[in-house]
Amino acid sequence: MRYTAGNIVAALVLTLASLIFVTRVDAAVSIQEVTSPGGITAWLVEEHALPLVVLEASWKGGTLQDPEGKEGLAYMMSALLDEGAGEMDAQAYQSRLEELAVDIGFRASTDNLTLSFKTLTENRDQAFDLLRLALNEPRFDEEAVERIRRQLLVAITRDMESPDRMAAEAWYHAALPGHPYTRPSKGTLETVAALTRTDLAAHQRMLMTRENLNITVVGDIDAATLATLLDETFGKLDAVSSLPEIETVKVSAAARLEIIQREMPQSIVLFGHEGLARDDEDFIPAYVMNYVLGGGGFSSRLMTEVREKRGLAYSVTSYFYPLAHASLFIGQVATQNTRVAESLDVIKAELARLAQDGITDEELQDAKTYLTGSYPLRFDTNEKIAGQLVAIQDAELGIDYIVKRNSLIEAVTVEDIRRVAARLLRPDDLIVTIVGQPEGLEETAIE
Amino acid sequence: MRYTAGNIVAALVLTLASLIFVTRVDAAVSIQEVTSPGGITAWLVEEHALPLVVLEASWKGGTLQDPEGKEGLAYMMSALLDEGAGEMDAQAYQSRLEELAVDIGFRASTDNLTLSFKTLTENRDQAFDLLRLALNEPRFDEEAVERIRRQLLVAITRDMESPDRMAAEAWYHAALPGHPYTRPSKGTLETVAALTRTDLAAHQRMLMTRENLNITVVGDIDAATLATLLDETFGKLDAVSSLPEIETVKVSAAARLEIIQREMPQSIVLFGHEGLARDDEDFIPAYVMNYVLGGGGFSSRLMTEVREKRGLAYSVTSYFYPLAHASLFIGQVATQNTRVAESLDVIKAELARLAQDGITDEELQDAKTYLTGSYPLRFDTNEKIAGQLVAIQDAELGIDYIVKRNSLIEAVTVEDIRRVAARLLRPDDLIVTIVGQPEGLEETAIE
Repeated sequence: MRYTAGNIVAALVLTLASLIFVTRVDAAVSIQEVTSPGGITAWLVEEHALPLVVLEASWKGGTLQDPEGKEGLAYMMSALLDEGAGEMDAQAYQSRLEELAVDIGFRASTDNLTLSFKTLTENRDQAFDLLRLALNEPRFDEEAVERIRRQLLVAITRDMESPDRMAAEAWYHAALPGHPYTRPSKGTLETVAALTRTDLAAHQRMLMTRENLNITVVGDIDAATLATLLDETFGKLDAVSSLPEIETVKVSAAARLEIIQREMPQSIVLFGHEGLARDDEDFIPAYVMNYVLGGGGFSSRLMTEVREKRGLAYSVTSYFYPLAHASLFIGQVATQNTRVAESLDVIKAELARLAQDGITDEELQDAKTYLTGSYPLRFDTNEKIAGQLVAIQDAELGIDYIVKRNSLIEAVTVEDIRRVAARLLRPDDLIVTIVGQPEGLEETAIE
Repeated sequence: MRYTAGNIVAALVLTLASLIFVTRVDAAVSIQEVTSPGGITAWLVEEHALPLVVLEASWKGGTLQDPEGKEGLAYMMSALLDEGAGEMDAQAYQSRLEELAVDIGFRASTDNLTLSFKTLTENRDQAFDLLRLALNEPRFDEEAVERIRRQLLVAITRDMESPDRMAAEAWYHAALPGHPYTRPSKGTLETVAALTRTDLAAHQRMLMTRENLNITVVGDIDAATLATLLDETFGKLDAVSSLPEIETVKVSAAARLEIIQREMPQSIVLFGHEGLARDDEDFIPAYVMNYVLGGGGFSSRLMTEVREKRGLAYSVTSYFYPLAHASLFIGQVATQNTRVAESLDVIKAELARLAQDGITDEELQDAKTYLTGSYPLRFDTNEKIAGQLVAIQDAELGIDYIVKRNSLIEAVTVEDIRRVAARLLRPDDLIVTIVGQPEGLEETAIE
């Protein structure tokens, strides 16, 4: 299908905020909020040094919204959106993308669908029209559906052999029993085999609406031009969505240890418990605390104790994962089967020590120096800027978040850390799943 | 080892060229040539929007310089340079990189060793000192050597199963018999097992000198500061190198067809013959010609004939590879065993048609539009800018190349293409290697 320019509508551009910031990151990232005549909002960072435009978008609702028995639906649907649209089959659509040097990619995660888009300025209108077609007129042709289905079945088969995936699946089942987070994002061999064109088309229409949409654009485009393109590209999506309700749950508080026997010299160990939500006022102190505990790589306490002092493992990490419908604290270590028990003892002791005593001034200062100093590394390409800003939109942190973020970190005190550690860390409540042949450990009874 | 600031030497900065360009790419990339007091030259693109500095460097001489029987030496050596240096073992060195958020990576290709380096401005001096240590005092500790050796042996074992690698190895043996390009870059299980710490240290010293070095820096640094850091970082490398002489050869002109039987439903096919050097005056016309033939993805003639019209393969490509000591024209297609012969017939017919008739005005115009229009995509991050400029340094194209490049492409005529196609394309001289079970083809005698 050839691109036909629509009527040119005088764009009503509401520049609600055009912030010039003082810190170095912010100096490079001045964000405008653009609202189109049709009411679609995007954040825009104008950057005219190169003739390129990057767009990142995110829809709330991801693989978690797959109906039971149709697991893999959102994942497979996302993979098919650039495989033919409008009057173009997959071959023709991909050819057009290539001729125009346009990148379009869709991905499904548990909580979101995301879109990454990039075009040269000179092909901008044609590129946005290709995107419009993918969003509004995806074809789900039999050839493409069967080809992507085959690829997905291969990926699922490969996943079934992965100890990491087995450990994660077991952990989610133990931590969030019965919750959709326990279901496989890519689906199973059975569910993927059964998905139909009708399923895919209906699910795309349901998930990708204007209601659940966050958009950031970075590059060589002005607000008025963007406003027009927003309406042309996203304006025909359904206005509101009817996502299936997902229950927000807490991680099971019952400590347990589960072993999945598998012939391997090393064991993969996942451990964790309830975390905290992104909008919890303790999130930033918890984030700083976890840098000291297990998020800070080689300099973290877990790494020092498990790896440097005892040589138990090559790496050990811990993170807070604030998902949309559950908040996790989860860590991982891989170690020899003979040393799993000792590793877990060390990890629990470190959690207990931190919950009891907090951290030192020096640890806090090192964490702040690293976390604030490395923040610019998240903004060193236009794609990264757009990705960061969409994540800020998704988390509803506000258009001025990147101005405030480093001062939020700087404001954390050792008292904050002590309070948050005592509140959050529960070494005796850990849910542990192990894949391998660990020695000297017994499973706790599984209800 | 703690960083000790050396004497501060007043930098003699020779800004030989500070070019402000007119086209859009060039507007964003203004290159200075910086020469340090010690005589080390780098290209510098100052970009102060973010507090980051990127450095890319390239040494002439790569895996091709591995002595016979010590294949894998440069590859393994490169992997060890960030695994301990000065007074720091691998663990301590990697911890320091991580604390300072510094990226240092070395890679070995056949013709070059390359370095990618990135630091925050605030850690710049410490980061450059870590780089200095990697270059001048790499440790090659037994622990690190054995760990990297194990990883390399695993990679070699995996490569041995790869049909793509088997086809490539066979092609190089047929095209450049006896030449070092036929030797495996990663080495063999035998040669890698035998490499010693002494081999690694001596080879590093021999390959990484000041004579063979090209450097580009992009980011938040000025010329005077860079000049000082160049001397501190690279100044103690040996001044001149004594690389083993490598003979520059032509691809064997004798057509041949070699089949490596392997139970697979599809065959991997490589085809090619002599190409042309990067400094050949026909290189740009040949590059444009090959975009039309097989470099232009979905819109290329080979793709149209092999894939779109006949459905013989998912993709088919061709490229000119101007290596340091040989110039290749080489293409690849993967297709069902029953259709290999037909695919090869189609490919040969397309080479013959192009050599005979050249291309149309419309094809030329489409190629120019794409090749000039997409050029900015190579410059949309500081890393990419640095990588492009080092490649331009390596090819000795001159500091003004990015200003001239699009006009060189625009200047190509259909007559140029016809002349170059007639000169270069030799469908009857193709060297073809196939891995699979192709039907209806016979090997030509192998001398």
